[in-house]
Amino acid sequence: MKLPVSTEWLLHCATSLAQLETGGTASAAQLAQYFDLPAAYLAKQLQALVKAGVLAATTGPRGGFRLARPASEITLLHIVEAVDGASSPYECREIRKQGRGALPAEECRTPCLIAAKMADAHEAWRRNLAATTLAGIVAELPPSAPPRTRQRLTGAAGATGVSGAAGAAGAS
Amino acid sequence: MKLPVSTEWLLHCATSLAQLETGGTASAAQLAQYFDLPAAYLAKQLQALVKAGVLAATTGPRGGFRLARPASEITLLHIVEAVDGASSPYECREIRKQGRGALPAEECRTPCLIAAKMADAHEAWRRNLAATTLAGIVAELPPSAPPRTRQRLTGAAGATGVSGAAGAAGAS
Repeated sequence: MKLPVSTEWLLHCATSLAQLETGGTASAAQLAQYFDLPAAYLAKQLQALVKAGVLAATTGPRGGFRLARPASEITLLHIVEAVDGASSPYECREIRKQGRGALPAEECRTPCLIAAKMADAHEAWRRNLAATTLAGIVAELPPSAPPRTRQRLTGAAGATGVSGAAGAAGAS
Repeated sequence: MKLPVSTEWLLHCATSLAQLETGGTASAAQLAQYFDLPAAYLAKQLQALVKAGVLAATTGPRGGFRLARPASEITLLHIVEAVDGASSPYECREIRKQGRGALPAEECRTPCLIAAKMADAHEAWRRNLAATTLAGIVAELPPSAPPRTRQRLTGAAGATGVSGAAGAAGAS
């Protein structure tokens, strides 16, 4: 079982956006340049995060992507499931109901015991990812990281594309 | 991310073998008939469990597959990883090291924080699967299930293919 390669891209893009000043945006081109990724394909993938309510896309000359809600309310699970969906990697095709060993219908009213155990494990994975927020990740970065991310991603230590004035005022 | 379809097959085959008398065997053909699965492909998949030390293959007129160790020492994780390998579904290609945002080498001596979080989640999944043994699953089945499984899988309620004598003596 493999998650799409773009999972890494989007986790890193969202973590980078979480380091901008509140409301700050970065364009798909800026994010692509920041991580040396194919811009058109990345732009398409970022739309999956918009659709999932993780990012918001803004238009206009300084338009781009920003977090759609506070970084403390966005978990790794939100991002991973935006990319890959929420279904369990284990597929139960109910082989218990077929062949010489087919179980009687009355024993199949509850979910297959094996499928239930596999679902438990998937829930353990989901719970773990849901316990880590983007804010939590940013808090674990070295203090020098967010200003550097802002500078390299949007071109100014404090400016985050909100507006020229806010950018100048936001320099920390 | 998806586990192979054969994951369901092998989990069910191993659970069925765990219901035979100790040392009892079933052939690939018997298991295929029991679950109405393609025999040749199933036989090939069962070899993955032999290679992983979960099953042992015996030869001779009553040859077949049996558990290689007690059902209390075989976990769902052993079976799932025999089928699909043990690597995490998340692939870190170290995009933190590339592009305009490339981190300096000294900040890359420890694993990428995001990759570490994804590895944590994979470990939570593995721990969950490692906590369920085949013996535990059999213990949760209705008491009528194991004798029925033995009868339908190997043709006799107590006989499990060890030998004619052991089969007769093993009837419960």
